[in-house]
Amino acid sequence: MKRAVVLLSGGLDSTTTLAICRADGFESYALSFRYGQRHEREVPAARKIAKSLGAKEHRIARIDLRVFAGSALTAEIEVPKARSAPEMARGIPVTYVPARNTIFLSYALAWAEVLGATDIFIGTNAIDYSGYPDCRPEFIRAFEKLANLATRAGVEEGACFQVRAPLISLSKAEIIRRGISLGVDYSLTHSCYDPTSTGLACGACDSCQLRLKGFREAGLVDPIVYAT
Amino acid sequence: MKRAVVLLSGGLDSTTTLAICRADGFESYALSFRYGQRHEREVPAARKIAKSLGAKEHRIARIDLRVFAGSALTAEIEVPKARSAPEMARGIPVTYVPARNTIFLSYALAWAEVLGATDIFIGTNAIDYSGYPDCRPEFIRAFEKLANLATRAGVEEGACFQVRAPLISLSKAEIIRRGISLGVDYSLTHSCYDPTSTGLACGACDSCQLRLKGFREAGLVDPIVYAT
Repeated sequence: MKRAVVLLSGGLDSTTTLAICRADGFESYALSFRYGQRHEREVPAARKIAKSLGAKEHRIARIDLRVFAGSALTAEIEVPKARSAPEMARGIPVTYVPARNTIFLSYALAWAEVLGATDIFIGTNAIDYSGYPDCRPEFIRAFEKLANLATRAGVEEGACFQVRAPLISLSKAEIIRRGISLGVDYSLTHSCYDPTSTGLACGACDSCQLRLKGFREAGLVDPIVYAT
Repeated sequence: MKRAVVLLSGGLDSTTTLAICRADGFESYALSFRYGQRHEREVPAARKIAKSLGAKEHRIARIDLRVFAGSALTAEIEVPKARSAPEMARGIPVTYVPARNTIFLSYALAWAEVLGATDIFIGTNAIDYSGYPDCRPEFIRAFEKLANLATRAGVEEGACFQVRAPLISLSKAEIIRRGISLGVDYSLTHSCYDPTSTGLACGACDSCQLRLKGFREAGLVDPIVYAT
């Protein structure tokens, strides 16, 4: 069975991606991060998801992204709430974490190399998303090129790394339908950037709004509980 | 004054690079890592060096690279000693840490973006080096391309990131001569992969051997103390 590393935040997109990875016949190695995110609640969610979707291993790397701050997700900057669709479409929001996906993919690459894997799955999406630059197809392609030049596997063994982003051109509703068809239990997932102290999703941040819109458009009810 | 982020391990190459960064007129922001390296002694060395070379700030990010192991520098794998030059030339050694420079540069990119800097200095060298794939010019160029696609600065502000590797085509002797001319105090630097419990350099690992050869070829005496 071919191995693949899957970046698993514990949110809706990465969970669906893990289910796709398995359905594509890979033995999946899930990787999560504690990076000082205000919504660290996603990490225990990821642990349950990895188990429920039969990941072969799940590792959680503790890394420090607060060292530079610069984002509403890692510093004392307010998470924007109840933004309209045109507001969301206007540029990259303060929840952008500088170079986050570059850092996450670099770690995935390191683990892939140790495992002898050449496939890395990431749940980035460039349709119903927050406009983050490191979610776009051209970023993913550039990382693949880098990966082949950066590693012993690429240089000595001619390994050709593939960064698979199966959700990149799907709408949120399509992602949810795909996940449901693969048996994903979305009640386990956590998407909110700014949960309440008891762990409930706020329902108003960009991430909650995109998620709720997705379920609405898919004609389904989101199984998680919202604070509002 | 233009800002630049400098990757500073505390070794001979990165120290010289910091001196060059300053001589080139940049305000320098030095970045080091505790990543579970067996030679963590390099981190306090980096602290003294950053101070002595007038870095504006020095940050130390604590990140976990032991989570995947895979290298003699982060796992219980023996560091090779007393290898001959032809042995060293034969492929990538076990001291290679998977994706390390990709991870380090990703962090440097994150900090650069927060600082509004577009220049990143790295002390990689492709002449007197250990054959690591992520030290070569093609790797550096691929990372620059990625950086421009990965960041808000690159996408929204048209920033053009430059990864400067001023040592890349110098011999170790040339690096040392350059550093001396810039006032570098090499007694502060630590290069050994496998120091003794009291912090002395072993004199036999690849890194010690390349360093000693450099000083010899430069007609200078290495000011640090060796165990043998």
